[in-house]
Amino acid sequence: MSVGEPEDGRLVEPRAVLVPAAELKVRISGLQAGLADLGLDAALLHQNADLYYYAGTVQQSYLYVPAEGDPALFVRKVPERARLESALGAIEHLASPKDLPAAVAARFGGLPARLGLELDVLPVALFRRLEKLFPQAAFEDVGRAIVRQRAVKSPWEVERIRASAAVADEVSGLIPGLLHEGLTEAEFAGRVEAEARRLGHEGYIRMRGFNQEMFYGQLLTGVSGCVPSYLDTPLAGTGLSASVAQGVSFRRIGRGEPVVFDFVPVRDGYMADFTRSFSIGALPDALVRAYDAALQVQDAATGAARPGARCSDVWDAARAAAAAAGLAAHFMGHGAGQVPYVGHGIGIELDELPVLTGSSLELEAGMVFALEPKFVLPGLGAVGIENTWVVTAGGVERLTLAPQDLVIV
Amino acid sequence: MSVGEPEDGRLVEPRAVLVPAAELKVRISGLQAGLADLGLDAALLHQNADLYYYAGTVQQSYLYVPAEGDPALFVRKVPERARLESALGAIEHLASPKDLPAAVAARFGGLPARLGLELDVLPVALFRRLEKLFPQAAFEDVGRAIVRQRAVKSPWEVERIRASAAVADEVSGLIPGLLHEGLTEAEFAGRVEAEARRLGHEGYIRMRGFNQEMFYGQLLTGVSGCVPSYLDTPLAGTGLSASVAQGVSFRRIGRGEPVVFDFVPVRDGYMADFTRSFSIGALPDALVRAYDAALQVQDAATGAARPGARCSDVWDAARAAAAAAGLAAHFMGHGAGQVPYVGHGIGIELDELPVLTGSSLELEAGMVFALEPKFVLPGLGAVGIENTWVVTAGGVERLTLAPQDLVIV
Repeated sequence: MSVGEPEDGRLVEPRAVLVPAAELKVRISGLQAGLADLGLDAALLHQNADLYYYAGTVQQSYLYVPAEGDPALFVRKVPERARLESALGAIEHLASPKDLPAAVAARFGGLPARLGLELDVLPVALFRRLEKLFPQAAFEDVGRAIVRQRAVKSPWEVERIRASAAVADEVSGLIPGLLHEGLTEAEFAGRVEAEARRLGHEGYIRMRGFNQEMFYGQLLTGVSGCVPSYLDTPLAGTGLSASVAQGVSFRRIGRGEPVVFDFVPVRDGYMADFTRSFSIGALPDALVRAYDAALQVQDAATGAARPGARCSDVWDAARAAAAAAGLAAHFMGHGAGQVPYVGHGIGIELDELPVLTGSSLELEAGMVFALEPKFVLPGLGAVGIENTWVVTAGGVERLTLAPQDLVIV
Repeated sequence: MSVGEPEDGRLVEPRAVLVPAAELKVRISGLQAGLADLGLDAALLHQNADLYYYAGTVQQSYLYVPAEGDPALFVRKVPERARLESALGAIEHLASPKDLPAAVAARFGGLPARLGLELDVLPVALFRRLEKLFPQAAFEDVGRAIVRQRAVKSPWEVERIRASAAVADEVSGLIPGLLHEGLTEAEFAGRVEAEARRLGHEGYIRMRGFNQEMFYGQLLTGVSGCVPSYLDTPLAGTGLSASVAQGVSFRRIGRGEPVVFDFVPVRDGYMADFTRSFSIGALPDALVRAYDAALQVQDAATGAARPGARCSDVWDAARAAAAAAGLAAHFMGHGAGQVPYVGHGIGIELDELPVLTGSSLELEAGMVFALEPKFVLPGLGAVGIENTWVVTAGGVERLTLAPQDLVIV
């Protein structure tokens, strides 16, 4: 390849933190345990988030993971970058996806009879092309096993999320200087996002769910916080059009109304999720009380979160605290806009496990979740707080460290 | 529904331009012609971009389009917003996707024997749920027909793209005041993006292709322009990490090097695509000559574009002009980084038809494409230009109107 040699431009950003070989080894072993459970001969992975997790690169490629032994990454574009980004030992150039069966057979001495694919995300048309390429194979979903494995983060991953969280902390600290009466939500968002970019926010936010779309988060002011949308989020906002019917609008920010800064930082592919509440001038008492209730819900929910606790235990504790504050009808949305969860796993994708809802999934040490108690008061707006937490041996540790007070500018 | 009533917050941004009923009527009729060609009883659409095109809303919903007669939109979340955003007459609340067959049967007097789905984008797991919900139905892909229909824009759509293009024009005019030596690419991007947000850039960029990801475009400086990536784009950049291996990095902008501003504005769901080239101080002659060649390629390619011309005619004219400038080896990338096209359709998604490659697809009046002749000179950087064009009765009209000179700041 004659383009993109290091002298022509950096193929890897020097400040990037690459996924270490030891991480990939443990992750591949974990997937192989999942393949054994499912009775599969191999998995063939293609989705960007999964490629990044198991190969450390998102170059256009297929990762073939046999039930035993080392995987191989077949890269259509750009193999040189994949070799620099990925610590995997076997990285081959693939001229066309059509060559995949021959490449697999040559390296692994045969073709799989039972092959795992990411059926939760692969489009039908792409799946059918793979069916034709591997006519001998029966296909099973490995997406569920992958999502389950990825829910538990390694200490290295927790450090990545901590680094990402630091971006949210720093940007949040700049908001009092950026927030001015009369700015539109869009204008204010642009100024905040510019600071995030300066600090290395990577921009694109990966979500696994079909049709899920997110841009930095939700920066909502006043009654914008009361507007629900197609997203499964407690707050959403009007948005700038019917096409992007969420997030900021051209509404002008006023005095004495809540400014909810729900923000997803991304560094080295890892996210945190973060919300703080601000206002220009004092807020109505009802909103201040709701903010205090959000802190109480956070205390109750995190107090219930520890290894072995079920997601439903955390959800129940959160709902009980919201009810004790007399705000059950306003918790996580209002009326038909209410959503039945108080938090979600987060990592390489925004919508990971565990979901803190009425689920029997047990928390494990290393799971990372965002807990986002929020209240919607029709006619007034929304307030809330969100932090990212890691489950430890004894409970949980907070990764987003910015002060948790309601900030009156 | 007790939340999100207009007094609680604006459910529709007042400055949003909603899709008129007459537009939807023509679009639905066009799809129905496609259903007749495919011998289908109906289509069931669920992907956000297609929902916006055929229903004018992206609220969480399914659009059922019978082969004849009026469609119905079944909305899980948020029906009130869908009713305000969409000009369709039949909009029903759907408590759960499981209720879909009963809702369809009740409204349409039966269930389809042959049902079209967006199999190019629907994940396998979601498709299998629909198979179970409609056990009597055979399923066919309508994604191809939809993409083909959407390639030809109405005059109303061209006006939307023109409005979006104006955002790129205006932001581009601000760049000389924002570009400073020593800024990192990320920092510079943040300042530019903040201006775009102020002007109403909607943020999220929809792409149809699996694993395709885009954040505003590509702002590349110096040798960053020589770095190819997993994307099928002529320029890509190092990116900030191995997870987002495209776009800006922490590289500091220097003097006498190209600054390529490739930018995708979005307003009311419609995009344009736009590139201008800048530098702080004079550029090396080789880059200036390459920029002139890009303008010549643009002239040659647009001169070949008219109703009835094949995409390959435009592509051939572009390649011939690049070769005449002695830059064939540097056109649309260099070496293995070269991509085999000079432009692409654009509208609600960034990767629409027509693709200006060696394809026999004939151009039609109303097609809108971005033409992006770019040259990569290893060790020096990249330069190029990109405009968005609509095919007219006699040729093409440019929709991105900013001056086309290479700008030395």
